[in-house]
Amino acid sequence: MNNDIKSVAPLVGSALLPEPTLQRLPWYLAYVSQLKDLGVERVSSTQISRCLNVDSSQIAKDLSFLDIRGKTRIGYAVNELESILRDFLGFQKPHPAVVIGVGSLGGALIQDSGLGNYGLDIVAGFDSDEAKIGNRGRVPVYHIDRLDEISSSLGVEIAIITVPHEYAETVADASVAAGIKALWNFTPHRLRPRFGVVMQNTSIYSDLALMYNRLEQLRRSRP
Amino acid sequence: MNNDIKSVAPLVGSALLPEPTLQRLPWYLAYVSQLKDLGVERVSSTQISRCLNVDSSQIAKDLSFLDIRGKTRIGYAVNELESILRDFLGFQKPHPAVVIGVGSLGGALIQDSGLGNYGLDIVAGFDSDEAKIGNRGRVPVYHIDRLDEISSSLGVEIAIITVPHEYAETVADASVAAGIKALWNFTPHRLRPRFGVVMQNTSIYSDLALMYNRLEQLRRSRP
Repeated sequence: MNNDIKSVAPLVGSALLPEPTLQRLPWYLAYVSQLKDLGVERVSSTQISRCLNVDSSQIAKDLSFLDIRGKTRIGYAVNELESILRDFLGFQKPHPAVVIGVGSLGGALIQDSGLGNYGLDIVAGFDSDEAKIGNRGRVPVYHIDRLDEISSSLGVEIAIITVPHEYAETVADASVAAGIKALWNFTPHRLRPRFGVVMQNTSIYSDLALMYNRLEQLRRSRP
Repeated sequence: MNNDIKSVAPLVGSALLPEPTLQRLPWYLAYVSQLKDLGVERVSSTQISRCLNVDSSQIAKDLSFLDIRGKTRIGYAVNELESILRDFLGFQKPHPAVVIGVGSLGGALIQDSGLGNYGLDIVAGFDSDEAKIGNRGRVPVYHIDRLDEISSSLGVEIAIITVPHEYAETVADASVAAGIKALWNFTPHRLRPRFGVVMQNTSIYSDLALMYNRLEQLRRSRP
């Protein structure tokens, strides 16, 4: 099934997309970005399907949420698809964020300039340890007591939580009290839901558990 | 529904657990670890349910995969549950791993000592940039050309892929050729499946996309 981009509507964030679709869209973006860099002009959903191992009807359905639909035998225009996906996903627009807990992972995220290419603008870090206060590259680190003051003045949208897991709820409460509307939780603690606040868990510990289990299975399946 | 631990079987990795169960088990572990630190001796599935926002029948079902079953009105023994979960998840046993791509994220993971508490033993890093070769804290960084030699000699199980996304497939191929059985992909590129190799994607870009979309929804739902 080959498709063409028929209409481009300013749909950024206007639809509550299903979570699996939102998880696949960045794969399509990464794929078409590579095609773009290689000077490829057209791509079919069959081709995307083969490379990403996603059913081509699923791809067409996912892209239809962005009002990208197709004509037969022409394919998607790569540049246009790349730009629509990037816009739609919110990666073009800076989202002010703070890192709470400047340990090894938190310090790492502060220094990961790659996230800036995906719209994550880390404007400050916070910690309770006086020794961590100061500058980390271009990012200032403040005492956690100043979270409300600094977040309000910088219009922070996202709190990235990288404290030890026993402090996760306390820090989440403080973030919400400071007017922050999204909590990105990297701790293994499962945060309780909060009304009117976006919660996102990135469970690298769950991913590890899954990987260890599958590795063990693999080992046992071999004589 | 209160449960007790009736039998403790050495089940580590012996069952191919459903992915959602494997994702929830680390939440239970984080929760009971906190109870343990606080000196709490017993916990009911109702209590876990309330704190983690997971249905208590689901918790009982998840734990039954580990052969943890219950008696009424007694509750799980916290210490025992903590220890079984930690063992079962493979967090007690070191899994030798290498980081391929020592940029900001890769360098960060190398320095994230927290992952060691979850069984991830990062023994080396690799990069194609000569300037990155040398030691990062206690971890040596080698040229990517030495991946096969070093991985074989260190018995590496896991390759953590943190290269720019256009190099992800090449690096995955090189890892598999070097005998590495699990690929942990942090790039936004969706790796094609490889027979007999465990693939794990940690899609922080997908998580970002999801968070931006939900934030936008939240904004629009308010006058």
